[in-house]
Amino acid sequence: MTVGTYGLGRFGWFWADTIRRMSGDDVDVIATSRHRHEPPQGVAFVDEEDFFARCDVVFFCVAISSLEAVLERVAPMVRPGSLVMDTCSVKAYPAQWMERHLSSSGCRIVATHPMFGPDSARDGLAGLPVVICPVKVDDETMSRLESVFTSWGLKVLRMTPLMHDKEAAYSQGVTHFVGRTLREMGLHDTDIATRGYKALMTIVDQTCNDPVQLFYDLQHYNPYAREMRLSLQVAVEKTLNRLRESEEGMR
Amino acid sequence: MTVGTYGLGRFGWFWADTIRRMSGDDVDVIATSRHRHEPPQGVAFVDEEDFFARCDVVFFCVAISSLEAVLERVAPMVRPGSLVMDTCSVKAYPAQWMERHLSSSGCRIVATHPMFGPDSARDGLAGLPVVICPVKVDDETMSRLESVFTSWGLKVLRMTPLMHDKEAAYSQGVTHFVGRTLREMGLHDTDIATRGYKALMTIVDQTCNDPVQLFYDLQHYNPYAREMRLSLQVAVEKTLNRLRESEEGMR
Repeated sequence: MTVGTYGLGRFGWFWADTIRRMSGDDVDVIATSRHRHEPPQGVAFVDEEDFFARCDVVFFCVAISSLEAVLERVAPMVRPGSLVMDTCSVKAYPAQWMERHLSSSGCRIVATHPMFGPDSARDGLAGLPVVICPVKVDDETMSRLESVFTSWGLKVLRMTPLMHDKEAAYSQGVTHFVGRTLREMGLHDTDIATRGYKALMTIVDQTCNDPVQLFYDLQHYNPYAREMRLSLQVAVEKTLNRLRESEEGMR
Repeated sequence: MTVGTYGLGRFGWFWADTIRRMSGDDVDVIATSRHRHEPPQGVAFVDEEDFFARCDVVFFCVAISSLEAVLERVAPMVRPGSLVMDTCSVKAYPAQWMERHLSSSGCRIVATHPMFGPDSARDGLAGLPVVICPVKVDDETMSRLESVFTSWGLKVLRMTPLMHDKEAAYSQGVTHFVGRTLREMGLHDTDIATRGYKALMTIVDQTCNDPVQLFYDLQHYNPYAREMRLSLQVAVEKTLNRLRESEEGMR
């Protein structure tokens, strides 16, 4: 069996490496990328055509904003019967795009979101969540995928793409927004840092360690992100109003 | 030697308990409070007059917004030669108030800020910061205070009240503002929580566990807090603008 990651950016490299580490010798791991990146150890770099010819399982690890164009372009190469998944941080649009562009290829389609990356998985995968959304796939494949991820120690959550996006906007989405905003403020480390502030700085560092494109894409392609940002702005206003009221009470 | 905490609210109780645990049998720990609270084990509850008559060292553990009125009222009871300290989360105003109202009492005055509380010190004091600002005090007393706190495992930082307030506005102050704002949004736990989101929720819980008066006082009595809040609002706007620009770029 051959498993491949399409894309070797920050996440793609990590994902190829993770598959390699977690799989037995009966699994070949290969990767391709438009830019010639060095793949992780044990992962063979191949060209695009070779990649689709060999892969039984394909994970797309490209920026959300690039996915649709990539799918359109590679659709003719996707092998019938192969299992194709994306790994994007939003799920509704990618699921739609895969359905639209790959349905005629005769492949099986699952939308996935491993809710972690090279930073948050530094200490291992145990208990980390992965969301899987069936798009065009049989039950048996879903069960097999679920048990592979479970055997890696992951917490597998099956849900619809829209359910994922709603929950993610108000968790991962708000975290990235806060991280980018605090970085914008130019906050720095200080000797008098409280525990809470140190934890906040860790969040800022981790969110800003991801490519800025991920941040834009998370906010742009999640149908609930706009509502989340409005709700955050309203909460800032409410908090400022409460402060004003309490100051008036003090006078 | 008798050490006392004036006030047995959330922090005062914790501080009396900490002094009791960290000190030897040669130290008596006493406490007083306008509301009759149960003191920690090993700490004697006494009335106000008794409290000032017996204390060699006094820690005021009252809300920032109550401190000045308390100082005015108790000034005649403060013993000459005793060492008087506040523990407020801002330092410029309390230092000024202590100087104004206690100078004629002939006591020594130090402004302090233990930058932790019952939540953040749950696993011990090691490495936690405490700020001390000399107000009206001899070098020897400062050195002795420093070595006592150091012997407790604390990281002692000597600075001016304004230096403290500036650093604190952009660390503790911003953390509490973010915590209160996110609580206002009604965020909740989710199965698909990333590590970053979980860390953010811990910050929300910890900051909102403190009395809301602490939040108002931190923002109202820190001379740099208004500037910090403006800077946060500007950062939110900038982040939203960047998103808008990136969306225009995508079209």
